[in-house]
Amino acid sequence: MSTQNELIESLRQIIGAPNVLTEGDLTAWVRDWRKRETGKALAVVRPGSTLEVAAVVKACAAAGVSIVPQGGNTGMVVGSTPDASGTQIVLSLQRMNSVRALDAANLTITVDAGCVLQAIQETCEQAGFLFPLSLASEGSCTIGGNLGTNAGGTQVVRYGNTRDLCLGLEVVTAQGEVWNGLSGLRKDNTGYDLRDLFIGSEGTLGVITAATMKLYPLPAAQLTALAAVPSLDAAVTLLGLAHRFLSSGLTGFEVMGQFALSLVVKHFPQQRVPLYQDAPYCVVLENSDHESEAHARAQFERLLEAAMEQGCVTDAVVAESITQARALWHIRESIPLAQAEEGLNIKHDISIPVSRIPEFVRVTDALLAQAFPGARLVNYGHLGDGNLHYNVQAPAGADAAAFLNEQEQGINTLVYESVDQFGGSISAEHGVGSLKIDKLEHHKSPVALGMMRAIKQALDPQGIMNPGRVVRV
Amino acid sequence: MSTQNELIESLRQIIGAPNVLTEGDLTAWVRDWRKRETGKALAVVRPGSTLEVAAVVKACAAAGVSIVPQGGNTGMVVGSTPDASGTQIVLSLQRMNSVRALDAANLTITVDAGCVLQAIQETCEQAGFLFPLSLASEGSCTIGGNLGTNAGGTQVVRYGNTRDLCLGLEVVTAQGEVWNGLSGLRKDNTGYDLRDLFIGSEGTLGVITAATMKLYPLPAAQLTALAAVPSLDAAVTLLGLAHRFLSSGLTGFEVMGQFALSLVVKHFPQQRVPLYQDAPYCVVLENSDHESEAHARAQFERLLEAAMEQGCVTDAVVAESITQARALWHIRESIPLAQAEEGLNIKHDISIPVSRIPEFVRVTDALLAQAFPGARLVNYGHLGDGNLHYNVQAPAGADAAAFLNEQEQGINTLVYESVDQFGGSISAEHGVGSLKIDKLEHHKSPVALGMMRAIKQALDPQGIMNPGRVVRV
Repeated sequence: MSTQNELIESLRQIIGAPNVLTEGDLTAWVRDWRKRETGKALAVVRPGSTLEVAAVVKACAAAGVSIVPQGGNTGMVVGSTPDASGTQIVLSLQRMNSVRALDAANLTITVDAGCVLQAIQETCEQAGFLFPLSLASEGSCTIGGNLGTNAGGTQVVRYGNTRDLCLGLEVVTAQGEVWNGLSGLRKDNTGYDLRDLFIGSEGTLGVITAATMKLYPLPAAQLTALAAVPSLDAAVTLLGLAHRFLSSGLTGFEVMGQFALSLVVKHFPQQRVPLYQDAPYCVVLENSDHESEAHARAQFERLLEAAMEQGCVTDAVVAESITQARALWHIRESIPLAQAEEGLNIKHDISIPVSRIPEFVRVTDALLAQAFPGARLVNYGHLGDGNLHYNVQAPAGADAAAFLNEQEQGINTLVYESVDQFGGSISAEHGVGSLKIDKLEHHKSPVALGMMRAIKQALDPQGIMNPGRVVRV
Repeated sequence: MSTQNELIESLRQIIGAPNVLTEGDLTAWVRDWRKRETGKALAVVRPGSTLEVAAVVKACAAAGVSIVPQGGNTGMVVGSTPDASGTQIVLSLQRMNSVRALDAANLTITVDAGCVLQAIQETCEQAGFLFPLSLASEGSCTIGGNLGTNAGGTQVVRYGNTRDLCLGLEVVTAQGEVWNGLSGLRKDNTGYDLRDLFIGSEGTLGVITAATMKLYPLPAAQLTALAAVPSLDAAVTLLGLAHRFLSSGLTGFEVMGQFALSLVVKHFPQQRVPLYQDAPYCVVLENSDHESEAHARAQFERLLEAAMEQGCVTDAVVAESITQARALWHIRESIPLAQAEEGLNIKHDISIPVSRIPEFVRVTDALLAQAFPGARLVNYGHLGDGNLHYNVQAPAGADAAAFLNEQEQGINTLVYESVDQFGGSISAEHGVGSLKIDKLEHHKSPVALGMMRAIKQALDPQGIMNPGRVVRV
């Protein structure tokens, strides 16, 4: 206890008393985004510079106190909030939110880890560039959190995950040393890929304090279409055609099941949802064009004509204005909200090779219908990346809370075992955190888990970096 | 010694005596590609399956004998041949050369590590897909070697390095365990990124036995242009315009200095080299188009007109036929051969942020001219990736062998210190091997080297995987 008080005292000296929070309402830092768990922090520490982060980590390491790095605290898997022990420090990067440099000729931007994603997008757009990472929480998530969890989002089909957009990192190690791996280099084969090891490690190996990210020229036009497809097989065929006809112009490909769309109509009646009544699935396609809107439209028409000839699209609308395009995307974005309105539900964030998704859904739907009669499937997601949010809603009229209480484990087990059968992943874009750490023990190969433990012990021998997340040693 | 004989005997039992070579001419396996060093192998071992590789590694680990994994043995940094001790096993993957699966709907191909790059390119093209990795040694290098060294090549500006084309690996660990990390998944956030840790580790952490790689639709047309530019600054401006006008259609951007081109003219007089007499630099641009050749040509013309208006291009030719396009690329490919004809020279494979390359070349040219009067600079490379092959030729008429003997160390030191000043890398695409392992100690941050050593010890505690390469523990 006295060690803890001494630590807090020395932290106050390092970064200033106002930046070491121990009293008052700390909910924003200790409760996870989905409100599944509320922890207790020894203190919430808010350093203002990389050197302050290093000093904080050194002090915690000396005191043997563990650290939970936190960005916008918008994670989905309880990975950035402290446990209930009251012995962990929350290390918030939010005060480190400066853009360090934008290098137009090198197509890179270097930012502090605490920069909010949307602020980075806006800075780049004002300079005439696109920073393509885009996800629902972009108004509050930070680039440090995006990197720590290798966030995905809606543009992955063209630009990849956060990992693919990063050229270099600045990291404070578990020993409190600063690794300046910031780099605007597109080629650097001088040893092991430390950058990608920290990306997606969810703060369990060190603290990401800054990053150099890739930029792209702003597209001249962006068009959105909604297409009705007769089946998931047809949606996969459409995806293949879209790759051929639009090439890298294809920047969005989102599938939505009919029941998911019906929930949007039910709970947001003011929203117009075209095409869905007669279609088992609808697809939102986005075409980003570097030439002109006319060219984008011509490309879209070529694609949709070919798709209708092949029978993989039964009907389609192309947005005539940015407002219409936003409305089409808004349908997709409204699904999780409509689900919440419908009641508690069981969320999955799975990936399967694109070619096997239709069969996966057929098989898994049937298994669920058999084992959990009446359970309703809210199936939608980033089909272009093989990533489905294959969610399960309680039977109509049932007590959702009771249903979850009784069935969540069983439903997760059934879905994840089916994912294993199809060579998929139980966490496509949300990460592991503490929510899936036990499941990972059953769904990841023992050889891989063994290597992960060896790496964790090698880089964080004290085990103070976000313990109980990702992997247990 | 008897242990060694027992090991060889057991290896013969594991994979068959004909696949354990200990006598005869083993030059192809023990001498490096650039003929800089010839080692001695305890044996050259050629397993035919992943399980055989695992059994070989287990046997070597039990005997404490170290292993040098080898693909096509086309590396540039002496990383895949044994040392002179005669105590190391060369583990050749060449017999493992099957295509395991091509998944058209998932846009992936899964191949054994020993598949020759060109064979993979051809298999994909016959199926209507592009596997974009392309480099000079593609006729003999293997995908396992490409992955082990994270090879670059001529299409990186659009498709990235080998790392960016890989979705999953199968690896035999230093303990002889098989990790099946083969995955056709574009999103998988279930723990540390082991895939990218093995990619580029040059066989020092384990043996890559298979991989799942990304495919792309074949472009409808590919056009090549040669542009004369008044300076490197102009070349960088042209690159920015090319990104804007061609977007991801820009699949090649190679710069060539006037002296480099003059060597091609001098030593290959049958080759026609346009434009170079009046231009300090020429650029080869490639535009891959998914619509049509007419569209590709129109795009190219838009770009070149804009570039001439801005003064960053003084003259340009667009190839009218595939033969002409090949001829333009052939000029670029002939530079290293022309250099060899001119005599021994000092090669560098460096990268610098694109925006800083012109200043780097100005500063470093001047330093070299001052310190090594008469030394001639053969400057060319993948400007689109910030990667220069900034090579140094002995003064005209000088004894090249004597010059190298006396000056190579000094010239390397000067160039690499300048690279450090500009935040660059001393090995952009060739890797470290044994050739640059000592230099890396001076040019990589101690914090990064410390993490590399910790990872090496964690995954290969016996130190039997390609010791003396990349990093010393």
